[in-house]
Amino acid sequence: MRVDVVAVGTELLLGQITDTNSGWIGEQLAAHGFDSLLQIKVGDNLGRVESAFRRALADADAVIVCGGLGPTHDDLTRDAIALVMGVELETHDDIADRIREMFAARNRPMSDNNLRQAQVPAGASVIVQTRGTAPGLICPVMIDGVEKILYAVPGVPHEMKEMVERAILPDLHQRSGEVAVIASRTLRTWGDSESGLNETLDPIIAELDQVGNPTLAFLASGWEGLKVRLTAKAPTKEAVTALLDHWSGRVEEIVGQHVFGFDDDTMESVVLEMLRARGLTLGLAESVTGGLVAGRLTAIPGASDVLRGSIVSYASEVKFELLGVTRGPVVSESAAAEMARGARRVLGSDVALALTGVAGPTEQDGMPVGTLCIGLAIGDEVITTTVRMPGQREQMRQMSVITALDFVRRHLRDGV
Amino acid sequence: MRVDVVAVGTELLLGQITDTNSGWIGEQLAAHGFDSLLQIKVGDNLGRVESAFRRALADADAVIVCGGLGPTHDDLTRDAIALVMGVELETHDDIADRIREMFAARNRPMSDNNLRQAQVPAGASVIVQTRGTAPGLICPVMIDGVEKILYAVPGVPHEMKEMVERAILPDLHQRSGEVAVIASRTLRTWGDSESGLNETLDPIIAELDQVGNPTLAFLASGWEGLKVRLTAKAPTKEAVTALLDHWSGRVEEIVGQHVFGFDDDTMESVVLEMLRARGLTLGLAESVTGGLVAGRLTAIPGASDVLRGSIVSYASEVKFELLGVTRGPVVSESAAAEMARGARRVLGSDVALALTGVAGPTEQDGMPVGTLCIGLAIGDEVITTTVRMPGQREQMRQMSVITALDFVRRHLRDGV
Repeated sequence: MRVDVVAVGTELLLGQITDTNSGWIGEQLAAHGFDSLLQIKVGDNLGRVESAFRRALADADAVIVCGGLGPTHDDLTRDAIALVMGVELETHDDIADRIREMFAARNRPMSDNNLRQAQVPAGASVIVQTRGTAPGLICPVMIDGVEKILYAVPGVPHEMKEMVERAILPDLHQRSGEVAVIASRTLRTWGDSESGLNETLDPIIAELDQVGNPTLAFLASGWEGLKVRLTAKAPTKEAVTALLDHWSGRVEEIVGQHVFGFDDDTMESVVLEMLRARGLTLGLAESVTGGLVAGRLTAIPGASDVLRGSIVSYASEVKFELLGVTRGPVVSESAAAEMARGARRVLGSDVALALTGVAGPTEQDGMPVGTLCIGLAIGDEVITTTVRMPGQREQMRQMSVITALDFVRRHLRDGV
Repeated sequence: MRVDVVAVGTELLLGQITDTNSGWIGEQLAAHGFDSLLQIKVGDNLGRVESAFRRALADADAVIVCGGLGPTHDDLTRDAIALVMGVELETHDDIADRIREMFAARNRPMSDNNLRQAQVPAGASVIVQTRGTAPGLICPVMIDGVEKILYAVPGVPHEMKEMVERAILPDLHQRSGEVAVIASRTLRTWGDSESGLNETLDPIIAELDQVGNPTLAFLASGWEGLKVRLTAKAPTKEAVTALLDHWSGRVEEIVGQHVFGFDDDTMESVVLEMLRARGLTLGLAESVTGGLVAGRLTAIPGASDVLRGSIVSYASEVKFELLGVTRGPVVSESAAAEMARGARRVLGSDVALALTGVAGPTEQDGMPVGTLCIGLAIGDEVITTTVRMPGQREQMRQMSVITALDFVRRHLRDGV
C-alpha cells in the first residue's frame, strides 16, 4: 500500500522551519510495511494546496497531510480537502465545545476564528485531539471510481506523532491486509570510497537484485563515513531479523575491515567503548583539528571515565613548552610522536592520540594542504603515520578527526 | 520567476537523512526575489525520478534538483534528466581526467563507475565541481514549446550550497532578465529572544510594511544566533546599498547592543578580530564544551596569531593538577576563575576564557543540567558569571560556546 505525504506551510518552503515531519512519517510507514514514494512541501495557497492533494491522491492509495489545521486565515487544509472531496464544511459542536473548554481551562480569551478548527468536511471522520486544539481528519475521497483516504494532522510534531501512532497507522493496517514487517540495518564503514565499496560488493548487489529482498543502498555521509544500508521485508519481526543477520554477515565477510559499527554507532562511540572495555584512559594533543576530536568524544555522555582531556596546542610555542616537542617543523611524524608522549605525560592517560597537519588555506613547513600526521602512544610504544586528507579547511579537519580515531580503532582491534 | 526544488534519495523519504537542502535553497531563492512554491522528495527509482522532474517542470520556470549525482547504481539523476531532455549521455573527458586526478591526489584507487560522474546529457552545460567529484549540470528542457531550465547539484550540503551560490543564482538572475538589483543584509544578534526582538522592532516592521522595500525577516538559527535579514530591491547596486545602510542603521539604533556582526560574521570571527585589533592573545580552558570553543575558533584561517590553544580539562584531576584549580566542586564561578588563571599561565596568553558546567544527562556537584560558569581573565583581572543554558546535552554545549564568546565580546567592546 502506497502512502505519500504532503506537508503544508510556506515557512517550510522558505527554510524558516525544517520539515522533519514527512521524514518521520516515512520512517514509521516503512517500519509498518507501507511504501512512501513521494513527499511534497507546498505553501499556504488554497489552489496550490488543493492541486498538491489531487496529485498525491492520483498516485498513492492514501495521503497523510501535516499542517494547515490551525485557526488563522492562512490555515487552508480543511478548505482544500472540502474542495477535493467536493463537499461543504460542517461545524461539529462537540469539537467547538472542547476548544472553548481548553481556553477556559487556561483562563485565556477565545477569539472566534478558533472555531474554524471545529469545521469538518462532510463525510470525514475526526481524530479527537488530545494535545493541541486542532482535531485530525480521516477523509474518504473517490478518485476515478476508487476510494482513497486522505488523513490530516497538525504540523506541530508532538501532536502529529501522537495522532499518527494512535489513529492513522492502525487505520492503515485495517484498510490494507498488509502483514509484512520492514526493518533496516546500517553497516557504518570507513576506509574505502563509495565506488570502491560498490565494486567490491558487486557480486552481493547482483544476488540481491535477483532475490529483491533485502535491498542494499549506499549513503555517503561525508565525515560520518559511508553507510551500507540493508532493508528487509518479511511476515514477522523474527524473519526480518534473520534476513538482516544473514546478509549483513555476507557483507561483513567481504568488507569487514572497513566496518566500524552498526546503525547508531559512531566512530567516536566505538573507540570510546573499545578503550573502556580495555580499562584504558585517553589523552589528546590536537593542533590541526583544534579541539574537534575532544569535542566529538565529549558529545557522548559518560566520556569522562575514558577521556582525561585534550591539549589543543595551536601555537607552536605551546607544543614546545607544554608538550616538550623538539623545536623545529611541527608538521611531521616525529612531532606527532612527541605530542602524543607529551599528552600522555601532561594528562596522565594510558593512551594518547596526537594530530598535527595542514588545514590550509596555505602550506606549512613545506607540507601541502591536506597533510595529516598522526601519533598514537599506547603505553611507551608510539606508532605514527602520515595521510593526505581531501577537501577545504573544514572538511580536511573533520576528515582528520574520523581518520585519526579509525587509526586508534584499528590498532586496538588488532590487539593491544 | 518560479523555481521549484526536487530532492532525490530514498533515505530522505525514510527519514534516515532529513532534507535540509530544499529549505535552504528556498531561503536563498526568496532572498533573491524568486518564488519556490513546490518542493518534492522522491526516492531512487528511475521512473519516479523522471516523472517528478516532468511534474515540477510543468508548473515552474526552473527546477533545482539535489542528489542522485553520485557514482553508484542508485544515483539516477543524470539518467532521468537525459530521459526528460530526450537525449543521450555523453562522457566529458575533462571531467573524467579531473576525477582521476582527485583519486590520484588521495592515493586512492579509482574504480570505473566513478566515470559515470563524467557523463553529461547532450546539450547540458557543466557546473565545475570544486569540492566533491560530482559536477553540477545546467540543462535546458523544452516543455510545450517553452524553454525551461533544470539544474542538478550534489546532495552533500556544502557541495550543493557552493554551486547554488556560485553558479545557479547568477544564472537565474541572467535568465529572469531581472533588471532590479536585489541584495540582503543580515544583522547577526545574540542576547534576546525572537519574540523579544520582534516586539522591540515593531515600529520599524510597521513602517516597512507601509513602504514594502526592504523586507525584514527573522531567521532563528539556534546556536548561530538570531538573524534579522533585510532584503532590498532597487535599479542600481548603489541604490540597494543606500537602502540597506539606512534601514540596518535604523535597526541598530534600537537593538544595537545585541548585534554582534553582519552577514557572514560569526561570533567567533568577531571575537578573534576584536582580540587581534587589540594585539591580545587568547587561551582557553574548557570542561563542559570539551574543545568546541577551540574547534570553532580554529575553523577560521589565521586564528593561530590570536589563539594560543585550549586546555580541555575534562577529568577533574586535570583541572586540579594542570590548571591549579582548588580540589572540590568544579562547577562554580571560583573554579571557572581558577581555570581561566591556569589557562593564562599554562598557555602564556594575555586573555583566557574558561567554561565549566553541566551538560547532562544528570546533574553534577548539586548543580542542575544547563548550568554554565564562565571565567574571563584579562591580564590579572578575572570576571565570572553563571548562566542557565536551555536544551539537551549537545544544544547546551553549543549554546555555551556562543554565550561564552559573547561574554568576551561585550567586555572587550566596553573597553579593555
